[in-house]
Amino acid sequence: MSAQRRIAVILGVGPGLSASIAKTLSSTHSILLLSRSLPSSLPSLNLPSSIPSSNILAVSCDGSSASLKSAFEKLKETWPEGKVDVGVYNVNEKFEMKGFLEKSEDDLRRSLEAGVVGAWNLSSILLPLFLSNSPDSTSGARGVLLFTGATMALRGGAVFSNIASGMFARRALSQSLAREFGPQGVHVSHVIVDGMIDTERVKGIMGGSDTEGKRMKPDDIAESYKFLVEQKRSAWTQELDLRPDVEKW
Amino acid sequence: MSAQRRIAVILGVGPGLSASIAKTLSSTHSILLLSRSLPSSLPSLNLPSSIPSSNILAVSCDGSSASLKSAFEKLKETWPEGKVDVGVYNVNEKFEMKGFLEKSEDDLRRSLEAGVVGAWNLSSILLPLFLSNSPDSTSGARGVLLFTGATMALRGGAVFSNIASGMFARRALSQSLAREFGPQGVHVSHVIVDGMIDTERVKGIMGGSDTEGKRMKPDDIAESYKFLVEQKRSAWTQELDLRPDVEKW
Amino acid sequence: MSAQRRIAVILGVGPGLSASIAKTLSSTHSILLLSRSLPSSLPSLNLPSSIPSSNILAVSCDGSSASLKSAFEKLKETWPEGKVDVGVYNVNEKFEMKGFLEKSEDDLRRSLEAGVVGAWNLSSILLPLFLSNSPDSTSGARGVLLFTGATMALRGGAVFSNIASGMFARRALSQSLAREFGPQGVHVSHVIVDGMIDTERVKGIMGGSDTEGKRMKPDDIAESYKFLVEQKRSAWTQELDLRPDVEKW
Amino acid sequence: MSAQRRIAVILGVGPGLSASIAKTLSSTHSILLLSRSLPSSLPSLNLPSSIPSSNILAVSCDGSSASLKSAFEKLKETWPEGKVDVGVYNVNEKFEMKGFLEKSEDDLRRSLEAGVVGAWNLSSILLPLFLSNSPDSTSGARGVLLFTGATMALRGGAVFSNIASGMFARRALSQSLAREFGPQGVHVSHVIVDGMIDTERVKGIMGGSDTEGKRMKPDDIAESYKFLVEQKRSAWTQELDLRPDVEKW
Repeated sequence: MSAQRRIAVILGVGPGLSASIAKTLSSTHSILLLSRSLPSSLPSLNLPSSIPSSNILAVSCDGSSASLKSAFEKLKETWPEGKVDVGVYNVNEKFEMKGFLEKSEDDLRRSLEAGVVGAWNLSSILLPLFLSNSPDSTSGARGVLLFTGATMALRGGAVFSNIASGMFARRALSQSLAREFGPQGVHVSHVIVDGMIDTERVKGIMGGSDTEGKRMKPDDIAESYKFLVEQKRSAWTQELDLRPDVEKW
Repeated sequence: MSAQRRIAVILGVGPGLSASIAKTLSSTHSILLLSRSLPSSLPSLNLPSSIPSSNILAVSCDGSSASLKSAFEKLKETWPEGKVDVGVYNVNEKFEMKGFLEKSEDDLRRSLEAGVVGAWNLSSILLPLFLSNSPDSTSGARGVLLFTGATMALRGGAVFSNIASGMFARRALSQSLAREFGPQGVHVSHVIVDGMIDTERVKGIMGGSDTEGKRMKPDDIAESYKFLVEQKRSAWTQELDLRPDVEKW
Repeated sequence: MSAQRRIAVILGVGPGLSASIAKTLSSTHSILLLSRSLPSSLPSLNLPSSIPSSNILAVSCDGSSASLKSAFEKLKETWPEGKVDVGVYNVNEKFEMKGFLEKSEDDLRRSLEAGVVGAWNLSSILLPLFLSNSPDSTSGARGVLLFTGATMALRGGAVFSNIASGMFARRALSQSLAREFGPQGVHVSHVIVDGMIDTERVKGIMGGSDTEGKRMKPDDIAESYKFLVEQKRSAWTQELDLRPDVEKW
Repeated sequence: MSAQRRIAVILGVGPGLSASIAKTLSSTHSILLLSRSLPSSLPSLNLPSSIPSSNILAVSCDGSSASLKSAFEKLKETWPEGKVDVGVYNVNEKFEMKGFLEKSEDDLRRSLEAGVVGAWNLSSILLPLFLSNSPDSTSGARGVLLFTGATMALRGGAVFSNIASGMFARRALSQSLAREFGPQGVHVSHVIVDGMIDTERVKGIMGGSDTEGKRMKPDDIAESYKFLVEQKRSAWTQELDLRPDVEKW
């Protein structure tokens, strides 16, 4: 008898960190990739050909409740026998170097959508699925829910008035869910990524080579997500920070 | 020559803390009171008769940009010669003892409106006014912007998933504005009120007398707001906590 | 019948902040000043002549248990009828711009003495006195114990390995005492002074005039200490930060 | 050509977490175990017989500079060809359920020794060794220095006045060293162990079986130490927390 298919859902997928997380988790999981630009942007993720395409499902999703519902229906059709036991909320927002008075209420609202509303909606659809799982035989988790955070989740800043509001709120949600669902066997973590990730976009802006080691490699970051997925329930991490050795903080 | 009239704006006014803040500030300021239920709820605030009614303006306001704009037009008509140099964002939300899965996206959205959107809108209208003031001759501040926070602004909790998201976001906004506008002479503070306030509503629920000293007296809390308004610019407080001596924390 | 003499004890007295605290508290309190260099350094404090010399007692004290015991015996002889109800631990250490490997275990030990051992000893002698007081008729406090902190109490730093260890420990003590003695009527606060204080020593090094407003005025800081002494027990502050408006943080 | 022997040093070794860390690291490292009760207490650690005894060196050490120096001389004699690239400071103190006024200055001093002085001394001897290593070919680290922390490192408490002072100080040291030596290729982390560890001693006190899953398994905790040792330098963790799923926090 073969083991049941495990499924990880990643919301907020671009060619950087999410692709690396998908790659890392693909050794144990089928992956549902969700973002506004999918599935057409799938080739840009450069997922390795070693991942069978039957283990990847890429669906357009804007983080709204309706959009998530529709994506999970496709998930159910595609892998009806699978169990969803990992969720990653990795939605990032483009940051604008503008002062508060140059920003509008709409900037705040957009940051709140990206920061916490999408995370709330993903959690709403994942947690009931997790609670219906039996505990994983190794980790003891019924499910693992990972939120990507940033330094802006811990400190406001002069040009971060909107985006920090969203990221603080995401952290609040992550702590609240950890306190509520930890005792029910769900592992909820908040990963503070404190540094610039070495993506194609960053290479385009800053130059291709990072001679000083200042950029975070997406694959290196993804290893911590993988580790959190596997952590055992008697010693779970709720929050950790990640930064390059040379980063000032 | 008489000194220019100083005006304080308080958004989120009920019979508890806001009334006490209004009372305390009324010795130096005319007060614009804003909340959904005003002006009809004004009598319930029990403001002392020693405050001349000509120094109080109570206007209905729901924290939206349009509603604030209209209220500030009334302010300008009423006290055309005054300068607005204090703002207090004291909007509180009723807390519901429900788990995450019993809550909806609408609960989150309501918490974000109360937590941070109204605070953003108030800041948007106040900061340009503050920046046009000359520094106060005693404190050195062009304006003082105070946000009421709570323990939920620092820690998420099992039944706080929505409300903590809003309160974390409010704290993010407060830090961001402090970092941006402090050097421009605006004092921005976040006051963590950690305890139950002894309001009429609480007396109704918990009984009239607080024999164990567990409740915070609105007048005692308001003294710290007054102190922050007067603090001098070489030694400003960005954040302080307030709790009853007997509170567990 | 005249009111009982109130006495404040300040340990760690130099010509900067402690002198301002003494000056501010002298309107209500007689002051016991303690530091290694007292009483000979008393003139350098430039206390205003308006403070009756009979209300100041300056005693040499190194923060050791024996030295404190002896100082409190002098206090008892001088003002046998008084009640001690305020303590301020304001010991600062000279900071050395050296890396960890250039420092020695002795540097750490010195930082721990200044950071926390002296604070422990002062608390040990003050708390039993406080607990024997009746609550103050205005604030409700049996006593108020204030610890001066710094940014280094919240964040370690490359050249702060020893001094941050001491200041973190001081903050730990302050929190522990607040949690234990708050419910017994003792107000314990930790004041994070985040900036350079404009003392004579700083003027000597940096130049006499602070044209950019970057330095904290000792008198401005002292007002917050005074405020904490007077705060009412239903709304006590355990921690606040203080910094100049222009400070980066 | 065989790879160079890697050596990990663990200070503060009892039959709980340190034994599990030793076991986990023994797949890649020879281990120097240090504590007051070693080497006589070695059998009580129940290290698996699969670890060659030639890969374990157990030496008595009280955390003093002299005692560490002597232990490292033995290390050099035993494994002259090895490179030390991991250090773990895991000294714990017995906790006494006593109020501040029942404790003495000696209790504080003992907590500071265990909390931070031993950690300082271990760091003083390890960091120069680390800096002389070439970067590890996989992680990029010249060395990894791990400090075990606790909730008491983040919050003081009524009965923790002494022990929290030591643990806050340890955290300060860890942050300071991370900021100074991170850019030189040394990974410094602080692991907040928030819960009761299921050791033989705890089993003796609380009963052998932990039917509610409230105790942390030393082997589960040790996996996070192992992970930190292997983390890659573009994405290092400075601090993480660990607690059982059912823990209140």
